[in-house]
Amino acid sequence: MSIVLSRDSQVRVMEDTVTDAEKYFGQFCSLLAAYTRKTARLRDKADQLVRQLTDFANTENPEMRATMRNFAEDLAKVQDYRQAEVERLETKVIWPLKLYGAHIKQTRAEIKKFKQVQKNEMKQLEKLEKLRQKSPSDRQMISQAETGVQRASVDASRITHQLEEVIDTFQKQKLKDLQKIFLDFVTIEMVFHAKAVEVYSSAFQILESYDLDRDLEDFRTKMHGVYGHYDARPFKDTTSSPAVPWALTGQSAQTTIRSQRRDKEEEESTEHSAEEDPVEDLRGQGRAPQQ
Amino acid sequence: MSIVLSRDSQVRVMEDTVTDAEKYFGQFCSLLAAYTRKTARLRDKADQLVRQLTDFANTENPEMRATMRNFAEDLAKVQDYRQAEVERLETKVIWPLKLYGAHIKQTRAEIKKFKQVQKNEMKQLEKLEKLRQKSPSDRQMISQAETGVQRASVDASRITHQLEEVIDTFQKQKLKDLQKIFLDFVTIEMVFHAKAVEVYSSAFQILESYDLDRDLEDFRTKMHGVYGHYDARPFKDTTSSPAVPWALTGQSAQTTIRSQRRDKEEEESTEHSAEEDPVEDLRGQGRAPQQ
Repeated sequence: MSIVLSRDSQVRVMEDTVTDAEKYFGQFCSLLAAYTRKTARLRDKADQLVRQLTDFANTENPEMRATMRNFAEDLAKVQDYRQAEVERLETKVIWPLKLYGAHIKQTRAEIKKFKQVQKNEMKQLEKLEKLRQKSPSDRQMISQAETGVQRASVDASRITHQLEEVIDTFQKQKLKDLQKIFLDFVTIEMVFHAKAVEVYSSAFQILESYDLDRDLEDFRTKMHGVYGHYDARPFKDTTSSPAVPWALTGQSAQTTIRSQRRDKEEEESTEHSAEEDPVEDLRGQGRAPQQ
Repeated sequence: MSIVLSRDSQVRVMEDTVTDAEKYFGQFCSLLAAYTRKTARLRDKADQLVRQLTDFANTENPEMRATMRNFAEDLAKVQDYRQAEVERLETKVIWPLKLYGAHIKQTRAEIKKFKQVQKNEMKQLEKLEKLRQKSPSDRQMISQAETGVQRASVDASRITHQLEEVIDTFQKQKLKDLQKIFLDFVTIEMVFHAKAVEVYSSAFQILESYDLDRDLEDFRTKMHGVYGHYDARPFKDTTSSPAVPWALTGQSAQTTIRSQRRDKEEEESTEHSAEEDPVEDLRGQGRAPQQ
């Protein structure tokens, strides 16, 4: 009987392992999906800011115009990296966590099978005990029941070993996957933050090198009505872009991809009215991957 | 008459300057406030993940338990830096942008005053023109009207200079503030991202040094029912924390502050049901500042 009780506590450990995995992987999955959605919303807000900065730049004199455009471009770059972060979190973190559902279902089925075999062993044992009490002299019946117990015990023992292997594999895979998923999460976040530091350093330079006096000179000329001068001054921009609105130019392959994402977003922006819709929010997923 | 027209176009430049500033500063303010709110939501989601990771850690064997606790602690650190980011954005970016409302109102009043003086000049000029056409011989009346025009013109000229100074100061301040506000924005973001890179690097080390084999050994012992062993093994944790849930321990001053923030959040979490409420969302502002 003690081996049956030991098996019973063993199956409880196995069940707890699977139940906890199901519970926590489910929670990690939905929390990380929510985290990714919030990140996508942050990207959307910053994208809106980029557009406003570009519009504003066009109302300013050349000095501030160039500063604001270049700053907006850097801010847009950070959002492209954020977009890449969102896509990577979807693929390397949320998706593997979702797959766990199927994996756990399968293991649950194995445990159920074992429990039935375990129940049969108990039944045979009870039958034998009853016989021993009711008809202790019926050697033949007792012998038959003993054979039944033995057979059930062998079955239970065999399937216990099978299940042990299943759970061992399950746990090993779970621990490995957990390590891998969170390592991926940390790597994705680390890459994004490192890129953001890089781009913001450039943005800092841009803003710091803004020449207020030169800008005020232009403004004063404009205010005093000497038109023509302030537009004639060469457009001080580090890139070779013409003086047309930023969003319409494609200066390099990277910028083109970026602009496409942004253009697409502008097209979609009318559909974005239900801003807090969680489905709407991750629509960025399908976009061209960014570096 | 041409000087009046020139003044008219001058005042239009001035008005545009103030109108554009009002429009864009307002938009920047609301977009950056939204950006800050989304950041606060991202922090909330990550805080929830921290709590789940800690709960999960308690269901695992010592090896994974220590790994998950230390990882959760690092993830919590990132949220503390995010909290500092939110508070700094509020103080150094959103607040100064909000103050612009009052500043612009004042400049608007100055322009209005100028326009009335300008209108009076126009009226005097029209009066003179009419007189010259209707009674070109009435020298006395024409002379009086001419004096009226001269006086109005002197007034307009005087107030134009005053307004020029007001607008000049306004524009100078606007450009300076704009540079300062966005430099502060970039600095705040840069500091946050740099800190995040630092903490995630540590988190990466923690996850990578996780010993799967040792953990599986413990699991197998547990599954085979040799109780007592896996709990007796010394708790492998780099910190000196006892084996009680992480959120309840205060290992250092910094951790204590952090835990307080987290405890406070847990208390408040029941009130957080209206998750998308924009006012609810920035309630973090009042918390103890983090480094």
